Amino acid sequence: MELQLLPRDENNLRLSHIRMAMESVGADAILISDNANKYYLTGRVFAGFIYIPAQGEAIYFVKRPNNLKGDFVVHISKPEKMAESLSLDMPAKLGLELDLMSWSEAERIKKVFPASVFINASALLRQVRAVKTKLEIEKIRLSGVRQEHVYRMIPRLYIKGMTDLEFQVAIENASRLEGCLGQFRISGNSMELYMGSVISGDNADTPAPYDFAMGGGGLDPSLPVGCNGSLIETGQCVMVDVNGNYTGYMTDMTRTFRLGEVEELAIKAHQTSIDICNRLTSAFKPGDEAKAMYEEAERIALQRGLHDYFMGHKQKAGFIGHGVGIEINELPVIAPRSRDILAPGNVIALEPKFVIPRVGAVGVENTYVLTERGFECLTKAPEEMIDLI
Amino acid sequence: MELQLLPRDENNLRLSHIRMAMESVGADAILISDNANKYYLTGRVFAGFIYIPAQGEAIYFVKRPNNLKGDFVVHISKPEKMAESLSLDMPAKLGLELDLMSWSEAERIKKVFPASVFINASALLRQVRAVKTKLEIEKIRLSGVRQEHVYRMIPRLYIKGMTDLEFQVAIENASRLEGCLGQFRISGNSMELYMGSVISGDNADTPAPYDFAMGGGGLDPSLPVGCNGSLIETGQCVMVDVNGNYTGYMTDMTRTFRLGEVEELAIKAHQTSIDICNRLTSAFKPGDEAKAMYEEAERIALQRGLHDYFMGHKQKAGFIGHGVGIEINELPVIAPRSRDILAPGNVIALEPKFVIPRVGAVGVENTYVLTERGFECLTKAPEEMIDLI
Repeated sequence: MELQLLPRDENNLRLSHIRMAMESVGADAILISDNANKYYLTGRVFAGFIYIPAQGEAIYFVKRPNNLKGDFVVHISKPEKMAESLSLDMPAKLGLELDLMSWSEAERIKKVFPASVFINASALLRQVRAVKTKLEIEKIRLSGVRQEHVYRMIPRLYIKGMTDLEFQVAIENASRLEGCLGQFRISGNSMELYMGSVISGDNADTPAPYDFAMGGGGLDPSLPVGCNGSLIETGQCVMVDVNGNYTGYMTDMTRTFRLGEVEELAIKAHQTSIDICNRLTSAFKPGDEAKAMYEEAERIALQRGLHDYFMGHKQKAGFIGHGVGIEINELPVIAPRSRDILAPGNVIALEPKFVIPRVGAVGVENTYVLTERGFECLTKAPEEMIDLI
Repeated sequence: MELQLLPRDENNLRLSHIRMAMESVGADAILISDNANKYYLTGRVFAGFIYIPAQGEAIYFVKRPNNLKGDFVVHISKPEKMAESLSLDMPAKLGLELDLMSWSEAERIKKVFPASVFINASALLRQVRAVKTKLEIEKIRLSGVRQEHVYRMIPRLYIKGMTDLEFQVAIENASRLEGCLGQFRISGNSMELYMGSVISGDNADTPAPYDFAMGGGGLDPSLPVGCNGSLIETGQCVMVDVNGNYTGYMTDMTRTFRLGEVEELAIKAHQTSIDICNRLTSAFKPGDEAKAMYEEAERIALQRGLHDYFMGHKQKAGFIGHGVGIEINELPVIAPRSRDILAPGNVIALEPKFVIPRVGAVGVENTYVLTERGFECLTKAPEEMIDLI
């Protein structure tokens, strides 16, 4: 089986972006071990490493599976075997994914390259991946179409008397049958979430262990996020924010549903979320600061008297948007202290949400691709608050 | 909300086991950051750290959620703030989870403890967690009961004409409605798997990127494991190995189903898997070497002429069993080069499987608790090959 699944031009394009970034930090080579980065460079996940020298061919060191073939594919039983292939041309300055690789593994790899100086290539790779290629955008667009299809089904999945868990499981089921891969890729190893969140009523105001606007107590303290098994009651909103990974690339979409009439405050906040998304995607363009988007969103929330509920109530999230692609937490980050600058090719999820005590979480989240012509929405399910009946 | 969910005696018991291990390596303190280890020590997952000195009270440093309270709970905005609480009593020798913590985070933590020498506490914690307490075993036992309930439903979930994906999704759905938490905890960040595997026919013989007997091509090269969307056909076996995390602690169970008559070789191999489980759990006891269990299993497979299919065919897995608890890959490891010694309190999944070309994967997997009286099975669904009709 051929290891490399990307067209040659596409592979060269991605490698060239990485090499430009390597040049800016003076790296002679980088060694990739993270699954998301290996997928970025080959179109598949495998166990092993990719060695990218500043000049010359990239080498694909494969531990498993044992049936991958192709140019510059070398099978190894352990990382130490890489040295044999590279012995004639060891890098003076080698980049490693030090934000992702465990301390022990990094130290083991360093011994394979005894003469090298090491730099942290994590940020460089995140920055390259923040600007998507056309082919990546097509994969994200396709996930958006399929996720939209599932989201349009959601009102029909609700049955009177359902708990939040039963509703979530029905949505998971529809997503999986539509082809959702399930895997919810999060960079780093500290955040745990299963297939996204369906949160109703006051459960939205339970603070999470992570940087989420809406937390949710979860079903068990071993996974204290999301639905908690409670009945969805009249007068409550239900926020649905579930996995959009259908192609290896994700879209991120949130919609809000309601059971019966809900408080005016919730209606107003929901409309404000839609207005913020519209304002941000019409007012900002490539070259603008990501943090200015956050400030504008916060200004609108404040102006409408909704600041207490903006991005959470008892505990607030520190951002209103994030890059999305292979992983859910990519660059740019739309946050007060972000240093990111918007660029054509960014794919950004905006999620200006509000948590209204007793009613629940309200608002929308959409994934947009940014081009020279501006933002284009890839998650087109209806945005209004939708009745569950 | 109280941070500490474990009864005081239980918390003290677990801390005492860790402190005994610390003493054996001369650690003055260890700092815990891994979710699984935090859950072990508190009964909940939170963002932050647990500082365990050799003497004195453990300190719980919480980043999120903001509503946790209790004795020795200190809220911090960033790891550097820990130094203020500890300034009077900094450890000379500090253990960190260096197999799990990223290189960057470890280096950041080291700066918080400028006068300390660091050791790797990962193995120590894995070894402590390999011996379960009574309360842990009760949680695992409960997961086993609930997983068994789902597995007994499986034959009724099959509908003629289903693909492997449709069958898997039906099993996922039943599992989730039974209370399966979904999260499939795997120590380390290199192995990705969603809710387990349902694999039929020759797909079982597709090598995986991981150390699995049966691989499966998956639905997409971004997640190349498990079902591949193909029709389940007459003459095939379907192996079901899905998530048993119902309580924060998992059981691991595999059962084999068949559609119509299957080759005699598959029947023989399936019975051999059952026989190996029975032999290993009657012949071995605390104090025995884990690797001897592997050798005995391999001997039986060889004796019956099944060696070519044992633990995989085109690619073989390097183990027949593993500890299980909070995570799916705990100690002891039942593998040829394992140095683990069986101990009372071990909870071990045994999975001597066979991959039969064209037919599929066959065999069983059970989770056992080991006591002074021997092995007790916690996954009691019927073991024979079950007809799908």
